[in-house]
Amino acid sequence: MRKFNLMLVSALAFASQPLQAEHHEEQEAAQTAELEQGRWVTLGTRAGPLASPTRSQPANLLVADGQNILVDVGDGTAGQLAKLGIPTAAIEAVFISHLHWDHTGGLAAILGLRAQTNAPPRLKIYGPPGTGEMVAGLLASMVPGATAGYGVPGAINVDVNELTQVVELRDGDSLEIAGVTVTVRNNTHYSFAPDSELAKRFESLSLRFDLPGRSIVYTGDTGPSPVVEELAQGADLLVAEMMDVPDTIATIRRNNPNMPTAVATGMERHLSDHHLLPVDVGKMASRANVGAVVVTHFAGRERGDPVHLDYLRQIAEQFDGPVVIANDLDTF
Amino acid sequence: MRKFNLMLVSALAFASQPLQAEHHEEQEAAQTAELEQGRWVTLGTRAGPLASPTRSQPANLLVADGQNILVDVGDGTAGQLAKLGIPTAAIEAVFISHLHWDHTGGLAAILGLRAQTNAPPRLKIYGPPGTGEMVAGLLASMVPGATAGYGVPGAINVDVNELTQVVELRDGDSLEIAGVTVTVRNNTHYSFAPDSELAKRFESLSLRFDLPGRSIVYTGDTGPSPVVEELAQGADLLVAEMMDVPDTIATIRRNNPNMPTAVATGMERHLSDHHLLPVDVGKMASRANVGAVVVTHFAGRERGDPVHLDYLRQIAEQFDGPVVIANDLDTF
Repeated sequence: MRKFNLMLVSALAFASQPLQAEHHEEQEAAQTAELEQGRWVTLGTRAGPLASPTRSQPANLLVADGQNILVDVGDGTAGQLAKLGIPTAAIEAVFISHLHWDHTGGLAAILGLRAQTNAPPRLKIYGPPGTGEMVAGLLASMVPGATAGYGVPGAINVDVNELTQVVELRDGDSLEIAGVTVTVRNNTHYSFAPDSELAKRFESLSLRFDLPGRSIVYTGDTGPSPVVEELAQGADLLVAEMMDVPDTIATIRRNNPNMPTAVATGMERHLSDHHLLPVDVGKMASRANVGAVVVTHFAGRERGDPVHLDYLRQIAEQFDGPVVIANDLDTF
Repeated sequence: MRKFNLMLVSALAFASQPLQAEHHEEQEAAQTAELEQGRWVTLGTRAGPLASPTRSQPANLLVADGQNILVDVGDGTAGQLAKLGIPTAAIEAVFISHLHWDHTGGLAAILGLRAQTNAPPRLKIYGPPGTGEMVAGLLASMVPGATAGYGVPGAINVDVNELTQVVELRDGDSLEIAGVTVTVRNNTHYSFAPDSELAKRFESLSLRFDLPGRSIVYTGDTGPSPVVEELAQGADLLVAEMMDVPDTIATIRRNNPNMPTAVATGMERHLSDHHLLPVDVGKMASRANVGAVVVTHFAGRERGDPVHLDYLRQIAEQFDGPVVIANDLDTF
């Protein structure tokens, strides 16, 4: 038991000290509201696959009923959580929208750091078909590290088979967690040929979180999609991806002056079909009649560029509610 | 070939534009010196396993002969590289010191983001015994994502078997890369019973990098070790881990007032044997007769705490050369 004791003590030592808040009535009311409405924190707001100097890779935190739930988990998620004072051991569940590695690259670290700090077993991981195989690979990658452990003779080491519990989700599924009803739809981020094996096998998910006092819809990565509009009907908050496709195309043409027009056109169509332009975000928000829009998984000019006002204007031409282009660690 | 073209164009579009430096003689001399001496950048300077709000997880970048070589690759490494303008596709090789996940948690993201940006195949990964099994697991975790690809019908997708080339290293090994001779020794971060199966199977490595104009020794995680002192003999730079064990013990006791003394004593011995106190760093630097010390993999009070002067004083009592407690993205 020696190792267990060491690791347990270690985890306790690392745990954050809870703030000693004074319990005024106002605070109690605020706490009740927070429990009902939850908090959505944009941990990382940059679209991959190129890491950004100013925005972390795609990741979000939903705090509901005091439980910490990750929604996508790109590189650097553990560090972003640390900026909120949340150790990886305090994560209850992870939702994965789809299997692009900019959305999953931080999961290996979450699993490893949790194991090193003696976190509660069986992190719940929800994701699209293929998530089970992905997690099995990550656990297999941990076997040599788990066998060596902390290098203490006779220690009881981590059993990687006890670290996770995976539930794969498909279009139309729903589940309950932390007092939240989660509903899942297959969006248009993939455009495999209808009825092809790939179309049957893989899905890219948009997620709706119905809390007791608020509803939040996360598009994940998607192109325009009536299905996602249906999922988002009447939601209080639409957390939407957004890409400045013309800017991306211009950058490509500038850096590749000899690129054939056909390739450029194909690229533009690819990006437009599988992602949301600002106008698409506005149309989706308007058609879904949501209360507000938070833009994340952002691909466009860096913060501070005046074109951001154009992005907002293009959305506002379609949707007359509040819109925020989120930065890392913003809370909604 | 449609997918290949898209990914290639994508990678080119994302590539940083090289600076158009004017070629004065001074600059040429500086460039020659840099090529010979290389650059060591502390990407992440906090010891795991608890992520820090101010320091990224353990990772370093060695730039030698214009090639980018990672030395340990904790969570968030891709984001730290982005702050230097270095895309993951521009990494030539990765060295892993040992299999604790705070040192490896960012590798999954590096592999995934490279694959998404059509990086050159076969990232070279050097590490201790078990590295091959670890990487095989990470590649297995990528199979579903690679099969789905970008969701474009008929696309040519990533072959995960072409992404890496693993070389396992053991005590006494050496190799050449980017004009650098790398020498490897087994340190004291693990203390398995001598001649046990675990002792035969696992090693925690310290690494010496002999560049044309400079020598850099990276302790990795280690306790006091005559072998590492021997490896570091006469090195220009000793990049050393350091832990404030009494502070860690005090934190543990404060958070766990009922912890039995025997457990506290065991913890202290465990940390002291497998890590370096400031006085240990000073003794190692002095005995190895190195030119300067860079402290990283830091576990102690946060930056700005005056106890940092005590850390430096304790080192200075043993070693009279320059010492820096590195912050993230410092260059040496």
